[in-house]
Amino acid sequence: MIGTTSDIPVYVVIVAGGQGTRMGMALPKQFLPLAGKPILYHTIAAFARALPQAHMVLVLPEDDISKLQMILSHFSDRIDLTVVAGGTSRFESVKRGLAQVGETSLVLVHDGVRPFVSDALIQRCLRSAAEYGSAIPAIPMTDSVRIAGADDSFTPIDRAKLRVIQTPQAFRSEWILEAFRQDYHIEFTDEATVVESLNHPIRLVEGEKTNIKITTPEDLILAENIILRKNS
Amino acid sequence: MIGTTSDIPVYVVIVAGGQGTRMGMALPKQFLPLAGKPILYHTIAAFARALPQAHMVLVLPEDDISKLQMILSHFSDRIDLTVVAGGTSRFESVKRGLAQVGETSLVLVHDGVRPFVSDALIQRCLRSAAEYGSAIPAIPMTDSVRIAGADDSFTPIDRAKLRVIQTPQAFRSEWILEAFRQDYHIEFTDEATVVESLNHPIRLVEGEKTNIKITTPEDLILAENIILRKNS
Repeated sequence: MIGTTSDIPVYVVIVAGGQGTRMGMALPKQFLPLAGKPILYHTIAAFARALPQAHMVLVLPEDDISKLQMILSHFSDRIDLTVVAGGTSRFESVKRGLAQVGETSLVLVHDGVRPFVSDALIQRCLRSAAEYGSAIPAIPMTDSVRIAGADDSFTPIDRAKLRVIQTPQAFRSEWILEAFRQDYHIEFTDEATVVESLNHPIRLVEGEKTNIKITTPEDLILAENIILRKNS
Repeated sequence: MIGTTSDIPVYVVIVAGGQGTRMGMALPKQFLPLAGKPILYHTIAAFARALPQAHMVLVLPEDDISKLQMILSHFSDRIDLTVVAGGTSRFESVKRGLAQVGETSLVLVHDGVRPFVSDALIQRCLRSAAEYGSAIPAIPMTDSVRIAGADDSFTPIDRAKLRVIQTPQAFRSEWILEAFRQDYHIEFTDEATVVESLNHPIRLVEGEKTNIKITTPEDLILAENIILRKNS
């Protein structure tokens, strides 16, 4: 245990690397409007509300940094936000974001296209990272799932054993900063897998079904409706 | 190979056993309106369009058989539909539906709350079952997933190896009728797992992202929007 969440700096690294190709649109998905404001605005606003003292680091593709004003113009209060250019992979983008993170802090890494993360979930991740060193949100698997076996067959998996992983993924800074000094490995599919490769324990916390990742036009439709219901 | 799909009877068993508790509504979810008509109407209509020669068997909770007219009143043409009372489990309900199925036929078992199954997917399942004996639709996993390991830990799974399983699940009648004569086993999570327990091979076919199972209020919202986009 390195302390409570009130006496340690908190950094939020928001990774918005999407090129929007799956959306079939010219504008990268993180800039698409949701209830009239860019998706990325909603994501940043969620953390600004939940953690007003946190330092935010926004990782954007270099070509999109010029679009930043599209986001910032919607904030009336000043926000503590540093923008850095992303790399060619998620791993490289997170690594560049982490270069802005101070030692002896707590770090939350979040997908730019998950705008519905709640205050409660952010706090839950932060508390777990403060106490245990890590936190990743997970929800039950509701679909039937099979896994590739030998000779092209797919065998059933007991879905009660499966969890769907979300962000924010939260860590004590010592763990994640050290982990990202490694070279990239194909098994690094999210931040937790990078930290885990140094044998640090990963702690699951309860995620939220509405904390969706917006990657397709169907997701955007669902997102509009989640917003409508929140506001009604 | 037992023949082409044109010279063999086809049965469609639609299982609508939901009690609607996850919806938090008094009406079971399969009767909730979608674009003004019950979800179950859309599901039955999809098969009536794709397979006009098929015999349909609708499995409903005994208490809901009185609501059947809510569905049938929306059909202007006659449909070949037999209604049977379901059991206390999915396994028992499917078994009761299969009691209406003739020998030497092809059988598709489908969730009543998957109204968006397309003609193309239904035909794909039927062709595969005619040629190889079975077909279950599957789509790629788009989420990060972990699986429970020893000592409460959850380890990552390579999601490229995972498939999300849908319905309709299609089989030659000999396989599924024999399989459902077995006693229920905890590993029987869908029809494919029952058939597979007799060592019949299960063949995956390409599913559809829009072929969603409507089980929560969020799903119903998404479903309304899928309908709107189809009609626009």
